[in-house]
Amino acid sequence: MLLSEIARQVGGHLEGPDLEIQRLAAPDRAGPGELAVVREARYLEVALASGAALILDETSPCPDTISRIRVSAVHQAWPRVLALFDERETWAGVGVHPSATIEAGAQVDPTASVGAYVLVCRGARVAAGAVIAPYCYVGEGVEVGPRTVLEPRVTLYRNTWLGADCKIGAGSVLGVAGFGFQNGERLPHTGRVVLEDGVELGANCVVQRSVVGETRIGARSKIGDLTDIGHNVQIGKGVVMVGSSAIGGSSVVEDDVLMGGWVVLSDHVRIGKGARLTGGSGISKDVPPGETWAGGIPAQPLRKHWRRLAVLDWLATAERSLRQFLKEQLQK
Amino acid sequence: MLLSEIARQVGGHLEGPDLEIQRLAAPDRAGPGELAVVREARYLEVALASGAALILDETSPCPDTISRIRVSAVHQAWPRVLALFDERETWAGVGVHPSATIEAGAQVDPTASVGAYVLVCRGARVAAGAVIAPYCYVGEGVEVGPRTVLEPRVTLYRNTWLGADCKIGAGSVLGVAGFGFQNGERLPHTGRVVLEDGVELGANCVVQRSVVGETRIGARSKIGDLTDIGHNVQIGKGVVMVGSSAIGGSSVVEDDVLMGGWVVLSDHVRIGKGARLTGGSGISKDVPPGETWAGGIPAQPLRKHWRRLAVLDWLATAERSLRQFLKEQLQK
Amino acid sequence: MLLSEIARQVGGHLEGPDLEIQRLAAPDRAGPGELAVVREARYLEVALASGAALILDETSPCPDTISRIRVSAVHQAWPRVLALFDERETWAGVGVHPSATIEAGAQVDPTASVGAYVLVCRGARVAAGAVIAPYCYVGEGVEVGPRTVLEPRVTLYRNTWLGADCKIGAGSVLGVAGFGFQNGERLPHTGRVVLEDGVELGANCVVQRSVVGETRIGARSKIGDLTDIGHNVQIGKGVVMVGSSAIGGSSVVEDDVLMGGWVVLSDHVRIGKGARLTGGSGISKDVPPGETWAGGIPAQPLRKHWRRLAVLDWLATAERSLRQFLKEQLQK
Repeated sequence: MLLSEIARQVGGHLEGPDLEIQRLAAPDRAGPGELAVVREARYLEVALASGAALILDETSPCPDTISRIRVSAVHQAWPRVLALFDERETWAGVGVHPSATIEAGAQVDPTASVGAYVLVCRGARVAAGAVIAPYCYVGEGVEVGPRTVLEPRVTLYRNTWLGADCKIGAGSVLGVAGFGFQNGERLPHTGRVVLEDGVELGANCVVQRSVVGETRIGARSKIGDLTDIGHNVQIGKGVVMVGSSAIGGSSVVEDDVLMGGWVVLSDHVRIGKGARLTGGSGISKDVPPGETWAGGIPAQPLRKHWRRLAVLDWLATAERSLRQFLKEQLQK
Repeated sequence: MLLSEIARQVGGHLEGPDLEIQRLAAPDRAGPGELAVVREARYLEVALASGAALILDETSPCPDTISRIRVSAVHQAWPRVLALFDERETWAGVGVHPSATIEAGAQVDPTASVGAYVLVCRGARVAAGAVIAPYCYVGEGVEVGPRTVLEPRVTLYRNTWLGADCKIGAGSVLGVAGFGFQNGERLPHTGRVVLEDGVELGANCVVQRSVVGETRIGARSKIGDLTDIGHNVQIGKGVVMVGSSAIGGSSVVEDDVLMGGWVVLSDHVRIGKGARLTGGSGISKDVPPGETWAGGIPAQPLRKHWRRLAVLDWLATAERSLRQFLKEQLQK
Repeated sequence: MLLSEIARQVGGHLEGPDLEIQRLAAPDRAGPGELAVVREARYLEVALASGAALILDETSPCPDTISRIRVSAVHQAWPRVLALFDERETWAGVGVHPSATIEAGAQVDPTASVGAYVLVCRGARVAAGAVIAPYCYVGEGVEVGPRTVLEPRVTLYRNTWLGADCKIGAGSVLGVAGFGFQNGERLPHTGRVVLEDGVELGANCVVQRSVVGETRIGARSKIGDLTDIGHNVQIGKGVVMVGSSAIGGSSVVEDDVLMGGWVVLSDHVRIGKGARLTGGSGISKDVPPGETWAGGIPAQPLRKHWRRLAVLDWLATAERSLRQFLKEQLQK
């Protein structure tokens, strides 16, 4: 794509010679024929030396020999330029791939796309514009909402309900029976998993269905890879979980909570609205709304966590003096 | 289903008007047309206000206007009422789905069910009443015991051996070669994975096969989702692991051990019979039988863990006084 | 296989009667008809009592009644004897299984093996001797290098690039979009995942593709099961990660780093060449080359970690005396 065309599409103006661009590259790994977007001042120097064409704000200095697109707000241009170079998977054409199986009594909208080796069971419904990538299993009574995309190999157990515009990463499993036993016997799990509109789930995640009622993930929440959501968990709207995490059964995560990666919640805890849990936090009691907690097992309010680390560091320096002093006291 | 019919089937008696019940619901989220089981006294008040029909013990107070089933022991009625509302996946009808592949030399019992897109390799045997859900891979020489259920997309590497009445969650992988190298070269893994009768495994788990001999999970043990069992691990009978955990190679978990979620064991450790590891425990040495350990990395006996947290809290309050005192000592 | 034949193939000499060997076994679980390799002196006694035939060094004492193969270096014989008993999965014969789908414009070398239900998309290339096990998804523009083995159910998103002699465990997902959002909107991920020659990945792993540029794993690196590699991560050559771990986005792991299991790295950290992170380490800042870090969240240099544990143990014993002393000071 020509740099001048890119400039036009992202709403910037070209300075320096026009060029054919092969691909995007990070400023510190870019080279000739590539385009690097300088989103932070600290990358300017390395970007200028890279030989790549650049996208810059209006004021950063840049030699005339370097082809560059000036934009008024780099962060606004960023998703636009990415979109220009995005080669999205198609997964499947509109209609049903000849190797797929649609059981009698399943309803697939004619504008939906169903890929190779997909199985859609009786009573399932796939809405308009939905995309079911190869190898997905869409169980009995499942609903897949409009424009929702199942990437390859997603497993939807019976009665799972997905809203509109969801995106589920490869290998994720929704609706498996939770870890619920009584006297060593498995309890029947009669519930189902519900994802509201705009939920995104990473790859190889697991969401358990409940003994009774719904395990629910609220609208627009984003959850990363390899995360386990226990049965009867209630996740609010706009929640962000980076991934590699686990939420114990019946826990509640209120709206707008933000969690780093590698976070674990016990069962039956409540994370209040807008709280933040830093990466690695292990939570076994309720976290009040708006608080930030940190640390390992167990995590604590951020200030207490820092204080604990500080007194431990101090103790490591003072232990010998204290020990000596106690010895002297004893001898008195 | 009519409330009177439910009462009859769970061995209780109906008080108040008979009703058609749509579904079960949790006491704190139930409404009219639903049935809530009050298993704990603290949920009674919210259940009475819910508008739902209830299952109650013989003595809890309840207004005459509320339809209710009285039972002598709610916990005994609980699995029975769940079973009434359990819509279990069928996965596959008896026989072999036309899209499945059974290689020459594989033996599938005529009473077994083999779903869509399943591959059963030569030398594999699937016993009476077993259910192989869609997309399962049953490798060469694998044995699947009577009534064992493989949920969708289970991968059984060569020679994996499953007993009777096992249940394996979607996406789990049994028999992949363990993490064993010598001088940077992979060691051949000649062993196999063995699951005794009644073992349950969650979704997206991994159980590694050994360099030599068996990785074994004992009868009736239950293991949750996203758990990694290293090569040559020996898990006893009746062990409970909530999931999102990892057990390092050659470790031994004796009978009746109970582990919360998010537990990690080093390689070559032994957890004694009946020990308990609370959620989040990181274990790098042997745990004696019957003990309870807790804490993060590293976990400790429960009493030591509590003591450590208590002295840390004390130190956070006392550090300034101690620091001041040491300073004065120095000046003397 | 006859013991004499095994002796010949591993370059040892047989002492005692020749025997037919059924299988290998660990010294502490071996029995008659089996062969145990005594790799450590502490297993000699149990091996001698096992009734199994043995492989021993030249000097360990052994009664004449026990059939044994003497070798000059047991560790060198170890991979050879394993190879003799290795029943490797075949996954697929050379050529394309009739149930597989090769889209128009995909190139599959005639010496490659493509198993049942595999999907190779247009623009993908599968090189000579590569093995694609059943259910693998090989996306558009993907390259699979010579002799690389994809075990069952591997998902390669668009443009993923695998070098020669790689091995990917069942259920692993390479190239899913990373966890990258701006103002709640998903950023297009235009990058790709690159694995250099000889990389091994365990089962059910996830490697994310970048917003821009490559997520790269260097030659001969080995990574265990259930591990999440974030977008734009750069892993060097010869790195060992035992598994059940997570690496945050844009982090750099230099050559020859060694990590135990259950390790988590924040985003944007750098682990210097040859550093070691013990199992359970949570790393949120750079680790200098060659250092060993340990502990939970947060991990520290090994010496500091030990010191911290030691002063905590001391404090648990001294806290009462210190508390008493401070009380007396206050009363003065």
